[in-house]
Amino acid sequence: MISKNIQLDEQGRLKHFLSIEGFKRQHLISILDAAEPFANVHEQAVKKVPLLRGKTIVNLFFEASTRTRTTFELAAKRLSADVLNININTSATSKGESLLDMLHNLEAMHCDMFIVRHNQSGAAHLIAQHVSPHISVINAGDGCHSHPSQAMLDMFTIRRHKKEFANLIVIIVGDILHSRVARSQIHALNTLGVSEVRVVAPKTLIPTQIETLGVHVYHDMQSALIGADVIIMLRLQKERMQGALLPSEDEYYHQYGLTEQKLAYAKPDAIVMHPGPINRGVEIASSIADGPQSVILEQVTNGIAIRMAVMSQTLGRSLNIKPPKQITAIAEESH
Amino acid sequence: MISKNIQLDEQGRLKHFLSIEGFKRQHLISILDAAEPFANVHEQAVKKVPLLRGKTIVNLFFEASTRTRTTFELAAKRLSADVLNININTSATSKGESLLDMLHNLEAMHCDMFIVRHNQSGAAHLIAQHVSPHISVINAGDGCHSHPSQAMLDMFTIRRHKKEFANLIVIIVGDILHSRVARSQIHALNTLGVSEVRVVAPKTLIPTQIETLGVHVYHDMQSALIGADVIIMLRLQKERMQGALLPSEDEYYHQYGLTEQKLAYAKPDAIVMHPGPINRGVEIASSIADGPQSVILEQVTNGIAIRMAVMSQTLGRSLNIKPPKQITAIAEESH
Amino acid sequence: MISKNIQLDEQGRLKHFLSIEGFKRQHLISILDAAEPFANVHEQAVKKVPLLRGKTIVNLFFEASTRTRTTFELAAKRLSADVLNININTSATSKGESLLDMLHNLEAMHCDMFIVRHNQSGAAHLIAQHVSPHISVINAGDGCHSHPSQAMLDMFTIRRHKKEFANLIVIIVGDILHSRVARSQIHALNTLGVSEVRVVAPKTLIPTQIETLGVHVYHDMQSALIGADVIIMLRLQKERMQGALLPSEDEYYHQYGLTEQKLAYAKPDAIVMHPGPINRGVEIASSIADGPQSVILEQVTNGIAIRMAVMSQTLGRSLNIKPPKQITAIAEESH
Repeated sequence: MISKNIQLDEQGRLKHFLSIEGFKRQHLISILDAAEPFANVHEQAVKKVPLLRGKTIVNLFFEASTRTRTTFELAAKRLSADVLNININTSATSKGESLLDMLHNLEAMHCDMFIVRHNQSGAAHLIAQHVSPHISVINAGDGCHSHPSQAMLDMFTIRRHKKEFANLIVIIVGDILHSRVARSQIHALNTLGVSEVRVVAPKTLIPTQIETLGVHVYHDMQSALIGADVIIMLRLQKERMQGALLPSEDEYYHQYGLTEQKLAYAKPDAIVMHPGPINRGVEIASSIADGPQSVILEQVTNGIAIRMAVMSQTLGRSLNIKPPKQITAIAEESH
Repeated sequence: MISKNIQLDEQGRLKHFLSIEGFKRQHLISILDAAEPFANVHEQAVKKVPLLRGKTIVNLFFEASTRTRTTFELAAKRLSADVLNININTSATSKGESLLDMLHNLEAMHCDMFIVRHNQSGAAHLIAQHVSPHISVINAGDGCHSHPSQAMLDMFTIRRHKKEFANLIVIIVGDILHSRVARSQIHALNTLGVSEVRVVAPKTLIPTQIETLGVHVYHDMQSALIGADVIIMLRLQKERMQGALLPSEDEYYHQYGLTEQKLAYAKPDAIVMHPGPINRGVEIASSIADGPQSVILEQVTNGIAIRMAVMSQTLGRSLNIKPPKQITAIAEESH
Repeated sequence: MISKNIQLDEQGRLKHFLSIEGFKRQHLISILDAAEPFANVHEQAVKKVPLLRGKTIVNLFFEASTRTRTTFELAAKRLSADVLNININTSATSKGESLLDMLHNLEAMHCDMFIVRHNQSGAAHLIAQHVSPHISVINAGDGCHSHPSQAMLDMFTIRRHKKEFANLIVIIVGDILHSRVARSQIHALNTLGVSEVRVVAPKTLIPTQIETLGVHVYHDMQSALIGADVIIMLRLQKERMQGALLPSEDEYYHQYGLTEQKLAYAKPDAIVMHPGPINRGVEIASSIADGPQSVILEQVTNGIAIRMAVMSQTLGRSLNIKPPKQITAIAEESH
């Protein structure tokens, strides 16, 4: 559904960031590499770099998400961009203005980037197809489809701990059916060449034909955990559940919640991940969420770095910026 | 009602911007000239100029308008000012604090400018009469009375296309009765010396004695269009309509909607304007809104430049800034 | 309840600002001294100083307060920090995330300071006990317990007018029972060594054992006013009142409202203070609120300076900043 071309410009550089599909290994590696220097920006006396000074970044959130909006807003501000938060409910679309007219108005105001969050799959992609050439669009989550910046911060976190993707066994546990995060993770993990991706959930939470994405399906968590290097627990999307897909929270925790007992089946140096917010005692025991194998808060930290990387790669094209080398120099100058 | 003096300081410089009434031709031309360099700021690598760094600009919106607030917020940020958005519903006025006490508190915090949007005519003017001498007030729309920055961005757009105001025939079509935009446009067009202003609407949407403002009234659109250089379509203010002032949307579109067929009566190089947001198929056909004679999105772009000009003229007084010449120099320095 | 240690780091420097209790006279004087240069920042051409550039300050408001949020936001922006406003109602806590998880997420995003407003006493203190060592927490009002920055701006205002705290008679009039402001003021005034603090209210609005804080209780306002140097009127917290603690607004005004007639009992050079927002004609006559002895708007102005001082003292520790001397130099450099 997403063609390769729309996310890249004619020189093959990142233009939009809508979905992991359509990217080759080298593209994903390039984003991970670009994030490395940003991951250390906070250690400097001044955390801000002036890469995107004068750029205007618009948070277009059709679905409320303080958490995701906050990470994009912080990433933009640390790149010295100006940020506009637009609450779609109170905007002119309620006066009957069409979405495209609203977008064209924001373009006419010389905004440079739209961060789009929408409860319908394909929304960010649709917007990217209709914006002017100088605008970049970043998908901050669309329906059950994709959440590519979340997937990339997960890849960044895995690489920092495991160095190489080859030979890794990664298991993803939980509501695969409704998870845009899982879908993006599976694409990213396979593109980066892990050894095996396993998905684990009750039958009612596994989409049909998921095997075609290159995963092994498990319904029993203990079997799936054997040999795992990386354990990704998904949030139990209570608000997305409709009807009786699950027996009960207690029963779910009993079978799929990550406990000390279950974790013992994985490799001793396995890392435990979760996109947050956590339901303690539902999908994960508190002792594990806060324990030595958990990298959950590192994921949050890395989320800022990945978003800074994607923003500076897409908007930096016109500036002819090569972020990885220049960041240090510019950051020093801004002290 | 608005005296000339309150908008100008003792040296005759722009202090508040409340209404087109009270300004002479030279004042309006000075604002248009000041906007010219800002209209090109976006072409620079860094769109921001540091003219108003350290100044605090408060958006005091008593009436929700994401669109208008956004343009003022962007203009302020591109001048490097700090922006405070105050939602009057959630503010202390709901605790029983009077409006004047709230204003005096904001002044005591050393805010420099109030951008006021209110559903009552005269609100911005009232506020300007009561603020301290160092504060500037800009009217961002008050009831049915005035929306001067919208009128000035329209004048700027007309001048960019037509060079001179003399000899122009301008027609304004739609809900003249409830339109603060129309009222400000009529004053601006006549002050700038156009040849003729025509207003076109059903009798129920024309205020009585509108001729005293210096316009010709038409009820038939085709007659009004003959010879027109500039066509300004107004938004059909559905939310302002009370009772049965209009037969139906279809009937309105049939008689007053701008279609290809009707547009043919105007001069071949006539430009088509609309303050937005557009009701496609109600006051304007999509083919015209998106067609070659439409300058609707240019109006949006010019809106930022006009607001930057008004902000820097009013607040720049104390800085002894002469924006037109200095902008380039400072912008270069800020690269 | 609040130990001395949590607000100070190991070198005895200000780390959190939660409550006046636990501070010695020298600490309070140090904050007042630090605020002095900031009180004059607005007189410079550029009101901004780059002390906290790159720092991220989060307004965590569990209780709406535009007024208080605005003063902290302005203080942060004038120190060049980035500000994040988080509305707790719309945040992930409504998705079942615990408060501590949300805080740890914000920490992981490398936020540097939490400004906490909460309707439960002890909330800011609880948060300070659980944050990472590099985070500073400022209490912007917790239940009926404490509002230390308000108390310090009052002390700053008193010192500017009276030079010395010794020998002053200060009276605090109104709803002592529900006032976090009064509680903090009493601690600050006694720590700074005033001669006498008098609280004045009907019996139903005086907490039991208030004398243990070092105040004299009056129920008759005229007796209390005799010899007063400073008169602090409290806001009648209508929204906090439950049941029939008060006879009527009129009766309250008659007995405890500050009128010209009552003010005549105080010293001729007594100053009149109020934390705002004012209920004119309920706790204070308009002629006095706007009269020559009122310093109410100065309190608002000084509130920005005090908050800049507290922010730069707490966050400046890691930067080894000594604000009072450096401000001028840095401000000049930033022209």
